[in-house]
Amino acid sequence: MNLILLSPADFVSDHIVELTGRRLSHVLEIIKPKLDDQLVVGFEGGNIGRGRILSLDGCRLRMSVALDQSPPEKLPVVLCLALMRPIVLKRVLMNAASLGVAEIVIFHSRQVEKSFWQSTALSEEGLREQLILGLEQAKDTVLPKVLLFKRFKPFVEDVLPGLLAGRQGVVADPSGEPLGVGKLNTERGVVLLVGPEGGFIPFEIDKLRAAGCQVAGLGQRILKVETAVTVMLTKLFY
Amino acid sequence: MNLILLSPADFVSDHIVELTGRRLSHVLEIIKPKLDDQLVVGFEGGNIGRGRILSLDGCRLRMSVALDQSPPEKLPVVLCLALMRPIVLKRVLMNAASLGVAEIVIFHSRQVEKSFWQSTALSEEGLREQLILGLEQAKDTVLPKVLLFKRFKPFVEDVLPGLLAGRQGVVADPSGEPLGVGKLNTERGVVLLVGPEGGFIPFEIDKLRAAGCQVAGLGQRILKVETAVTVMLTKLFY
Repeated sequence: MNLILLSPADFVSDHIVELTGRRLSHVLEIIKPKLDDQLVVGFEGGNIGRGRILSLDGCRLRMSVALDQSPPEKLPVVLCLALMRPIVLKRVLMNAASLGVAEIVIFHSRQVEKSFWQSTALSEEGLREQLILGLEQAKDTVLPKVLLFKRFKPFVEDVLPGLLAGRQGVVADPSGEPLGVGKLNTERGVVLLVGPEGGFIPFEIDKLRAAGCQVAGLGQRILKVETAVTVMLTKLFY
Repeated sequence: MNLILLSPADFVSDHIVELTGRRLSHVLEIIKPKLDDQLVVGFEGGNIGRGRILSLDGCRLRMSVALDQSPPEKLPVVLCLALMRPIVLKRVLMNAASLGVAEIVIFHSRQVEKSFWQSTALSEEGLREQLILGLEQAKDTVLPKVLLFKRFKPFVEDVLPGLLAGRQGVVADPSGEPLGVGKLNTERGVVLLVGPEGGFIPFEIDKLRAAGCQVAGLGQRILKVETAVTVMLTKLFY
């Protein structure tokens, strides 16, 4: 937690906040601050800044906050992920939020186990938990938007064309040619699609190509989904 | 498991292998092959190729193997990691092996909890387990070498200069300037050093600079160690 994310409920007056619960425990156990110390804080969806500790005990911490800096810029990318094992999805969501992904779409694909859709990791609270961990890690305040599509065809036929308007579509798949650095105009924005662990089936690749996406591989090595997401985002934006 | 890694003990004759245990379970449960199907195999430290299934039951699988292709090339990098929480270290090791890191050094640094050195993840068997998972993922056969140094100063003063001979040293640290693409001659090889979750202390950064390393950051966002390793390797080599 490199930033303490604040919400309206934390404010007891205009510039004074009170922390309890998970964030308080973290501050007490890991940061171990003293009175008058300053901590990095941010307001959910807004500015980042500093909080000066006014009072502190085991069950309550009070800070005076000044929020005067913009959060870091988002990457102009819509990251579309085939649903994966919930334990992996959690890490990918946290990671994507920390890397600055603006928008996340989770969709169904043939090689995805249907039971994964029942996971609490996909509940509003479950998604929010991982995304907030990512923001706290990267000192960001703006939650990525998340959309879920439980069927592949409606996603590709009805939703993807809208996402691709004004953006380049890139499908990460071992069948593609390595992505040349600098060959994409990423300033217009990118829709990056990543398949499930078993990969996209040929029908799905065909549909994605037909929608206007290019298929890009990462060379001879097959990487885990979570690694491939970070590698592709780095190649495109870092 | 995109490749079944074979060792001498698996061979019952020149070209015939028998699988048991973890690899057999994986093949039966995930790949579910039939007689005469071909699986991707590799010989530890050697070639990759195909294994044709000759016989198959619940406790034994016999294949005829042909190993006629070289494994993928390694990245010319020595990845030096400050020791981290064992659960994170496991993922980083697997990842590093899958990305093609040739050599891994694990060293102590001030902000590393000393108790981490007791972890079984650092035993020969514990290290090997994660590295093999990475090789199986990426269809590689060559285990990265791993060296451990339990004290920072002897590592930096006595070992690092040898590693840096003919290679460029890069320290990933938020205090550094973003790494410009193409500014490093990575063909000569790189020694990439990554600090612990709490970061290097200024004394350590000074020692690393004095040894000839440049300090490189990744911009405004602070990333988790496992993400930072993948981002840096991608920027340098992918």
